Amino acid sequence: MKDPISAMQWRYATKQYNADKKVSQADIDTILEATRLAPSSYGLQPYKMIVVTNPEIREKLKEAAYGQPQLTDATTIVVFAVGTVIDEVRVDAYMKQVSDTRGVAIEDLAGFKGMVMGAITPMSMEARSEWAARQAYLGLGVLLETAAMMEIDTTPMEGFAPSKFDEILGLAEKGLKTVVIAAIGYRNEADSYIAMKKVRPSKEEMIIEVK
Amino acid sequence: MKDPISAMQWRYATKQYNADKKVSQADIDTILEATRLAPSSYGLQPYKMIVVTNPEIREKLKEAAYGQPQLTDATTIVVFAVGTVIDEVRVDAYMKQVSDTRGVAIEDLAGFKGMVMGAITPMSMEARSEWAARQAYLGLGVLLETAAMMEIDTTPMEGFAPSKFDEILGLAEKGLKTVVIAAIGYRNEADSYIAMKKVRPSKEEMIIEVK
Repeated sequence: MKDPISAMQWRYATKQYNADKKVSQADIDTILEATRLAPSSYGLQPYKMIVVTNPEIREKLKEAAYGQPQLTDATTIVVFAVGTVIDEVRVDAYMKQVSDTRGVAIEDLAGFKGMVMGAITPMSMEARSEWAARQAYLGLGVLLETAAMMEIDTTPMEGFAPSKFDEILGLAEKGLKTVVIAAIGYRNEADSYIAMKKVRPSKEEMIIEVK
Repeated sequence: MKDPISAMQWRYATKQYNADKKVSQADIDTILEATRLAPSSYGLQPYKMIVVTNPEIREKLKEAAYGQPQLTDATTIVVFAVGTVIDEVRVDAYMKQVSDTRGVAIEDLAGFKGMVMGAITPMSMEARSEWAARQAYLGLGVLLETAAMMEIDTTPMEGFAPSKFDEILGLAEKGLKTVVIAAIGYRNEADSYIAMKKVRPSKEEMIIEVK
């Protein structure tokens, strides 16, 4: 397995996948499992991963993503979708989960619940979804890094019509909406982007030290 | 080094740090370097990491974070701050960087620039900062996972007054605003949160398969 820095240097936003070389289910599972374990605000984990392997549906998603070939050629597509309604019902369900997992009485979680409600109550439903989107991106970071360490390629993608994705995947009925997607697969060695130098702000530009 | 899943299982949002045990500068550098290499929309990397070690400033940040001890007891604090003005000037500076790094003429990047401008132009300046915030969270995911693999503790934190952070760190003058922070250090083994079971949605809850 690559170390984190080598992995992050090695990875790139893959444009062309090798459609004939599939990532094993075990490796896909490892990547998704690391992502499932990613932290989120209060642990609320207000997003889901829609893992799309169905070829017909992927054809439709490709159309809704301006024909980008990753949608059909990668091994799998992970759609990060956030909750459209993050409310007390959702928070109560989470409190029950905390209670069950940790063997703590619901009553003893009143303070914690108050904290979460105190954070979300002032936000509009849209602001809550945006806050959820940030958490999904944190998960996306974990997904990309985990895959790269395993020398598995990925493409984080924002270039698609979210409302079309929601329609194709029937997400509105599930109380979800698409925020970002990731393709996972193996690069086509002919992808001209492989040879391109990575462009990042220098350490001096990116990091401000307050000593 | 831990593998990704073990690392993600091992980590937790550290509440109490061991103030006497400091993470080495080399390890901090590794964590920040992996994060610097994180991808972002179009590669624009519209955020910076303010790395705060100064004790007096950290005391002030602690006050602005409701007295949470991580602010002073962790080895270092990384403040993720996004640009408040993401405009054509910023995009042009990035195009120059792409041109310099890849040895491509600026003229040949006109299509790429058009794509980036096409994405940001319809957004309000606030929406652009929010978009930037998502990218910062992706970086935060990389930071947390990298540290965990090195058995270094972290705390992703949203519980603070962003405007006070901006004031203490003089960020407005730099065209930046705080979106999220991460403490990095070694856990205090007496931290009662260590023993608590991690609460995450089950695989079945978190992942929807479309086969």
